[in-house]
Amino acid sequence: MSKRPAKPFLLISNDDGYQARGLQFLIEVLSPVADLLVVAPEGPRSGSACRITCDAPIRCRCVSHRRGLTVYACTGTPVDCIKLAVDRLLKGRVPDLIIGGINHGDNASVNAHYSGTMGVATEGAIQGYPSIAFSICDWNPEANFEPLRPYIVDLMFKAISIGLPPLTCLNVNFPKAEKFRGVRICRMGSSRWANEMQQRKDPRGNGHYYWLVGDCIDLEPEAEDTDRWALAHDFVAVTPVTFDCTAYGLIEPLQKVL
Amino acid sequence: MSKRPAKPFLLISNDDGYQARGLQFLIEVLSPVADLLVVAPEGPRSGSACRITCDAPIRCRCVSHRRGLTVYACTGTPVDCIKLAVDRLLKGRVPDLIIGGINHGDNASVNAHYSGTMGVATEGAIQGYPSIAFSICDWNPEANFEPLRPYIVDLMFKAISIGLPPLTCLNVNFPKAEKFRGVRICRMGSSRWANEMQQRKDPRGNGHYYWLVGDCIDLEPEAEDTDRWALAHDFVAVTPVTFDCTAYGLIEPLQKVL
Repeated sequence: MSKRPAKPFLLISNDDGYQARGLQFLIEVLSPVADLLVVAPEGPRSGSACRITCDAPIRCRCVSHRRGLTVYACTGTPVDCIKLAVDRLLKGRVPDLIIGGINHGDNASVNAHYSGTMGVATEGAIQGYPSIAFSICDWNPEANFEPLRPYIVDLMFKAISIGLPPLTCLNVNFPKAEKFRGVRICRMGSSRWANEMQQRKDPRGNGHYYWLVGDCIDLEPEAEDTDRWALAHDFVAVTPVTFDCTAYGLIEPLQKVL
Repeated sequence: MSKRPAKPFLLISNDDGYQARGLQFLIEVLSPVADLLVVAPEGPRSGSACRITCDAPIRCRCVSHRRGLTVYACTGTPVDCIKLAVDRLLKGRVPDLIIGGINHGDNASVNAHYSGTMGVATEGAIQGYPSIAFSICDWNPEANFEPLRPYIVDLMFKAISIGLPPLTCLNVNFPKAEKFRGVRICRMGSSRWANEMQQRKDPRGNGHYYWLVGDCIDLEPEAEDTDRWALAHDFVAVTPVTFDCTAYGLIEPLQKVL
């Protein structure tokens, strides 16, 4: 158990861009109780996962600076933002926690793999810092963030005080609800997307093109220990995530056949 | 144990683009023994991870078609390619294996998180198909792929015949060597990148910009069971990977404090 810092120092990023309502709400909620360094993409980067920018230079500019709150906008991906902060912008300060979010849209179950918000937390964990991702299951740009307020402050302080082990982070998803029934610690549910490529005709007669859409199918709707079950029952879903992806149970069987 | 198919049907993608030498070598090696459907990005997509295209339409075109080999070039990411293939291009055929690669560059340890080649295998596994990613630890565009030839055929047939469990795939990395000392089943090693943002001055005086570079530091160089150790000792590293990222060991401790 590490000591709870009087005023924690938080590094924040997201995948919806520095002007997104989810990030602005996070700043509003956390700036009274913490010092914040925000390094976020200059625009939307939904579905970025852990993408890094290998083929172009990255720029960033300070868009706001006052006591306890500095905001940078970066041309790169969410993961680039964390790498840039760690290598260039922290200048020796050690964040007590790295936060991704609040994402507009559900990052539970397999969606965690596609999520730039989880990219932030993944990179934070890889860099050796306690990290947490916040998402709300509501794509509406006018989504109501108010019910999240007390949970975010509480989870932020707790994530710091409990001291997450190396290579782990927390994936926190909030249901779309006026009131939550509490917090549940979950495992990542099993789901799969179907009907993902909607075909449309080019209006100029140049063949057709596709939009990535689809239906997310819960493959185990009866299992009460998954993040998806918690969300479907108006609980806040907290899933501890590890970035050591080794399938340990397969090592011995594979050693016999390969 | 499922039966080894006489002539397997393979779905192949990569993150270096359909014209990349690694992919062309894979086609050369596998087309005599398997039917191939290739759906790959039209150009390089290094560092794509599991990125999906949410903000633009996706197009694809058939660039080559003969008996047993069809190649599509796609404007999207490696994961988009697999989604497009599964939803639109397979037309009811069931791939015996989904393959990503051969990637130019090391995808061992934490690099797996940033890799578009692993994105292919991740998506394949999420879609419910046995999947495998091949990478060589050599960024040289003229890299010598010849030593990989027998291993690729052998691993392809074995990955099919052993029947990988759901939500798992194999991450195969080849060392840069004339001859390999054999195959080792590994766990994902722990490493971290440092000095990642190289700062350069804009030639027109418009501030500075950054290039993502860096040094990959092995955090456990003495551990003989990691992928990085195997590669450093000229072994082919086969790491079984799971996409259920739950940190199960944390569920109970977190239930007590959150």
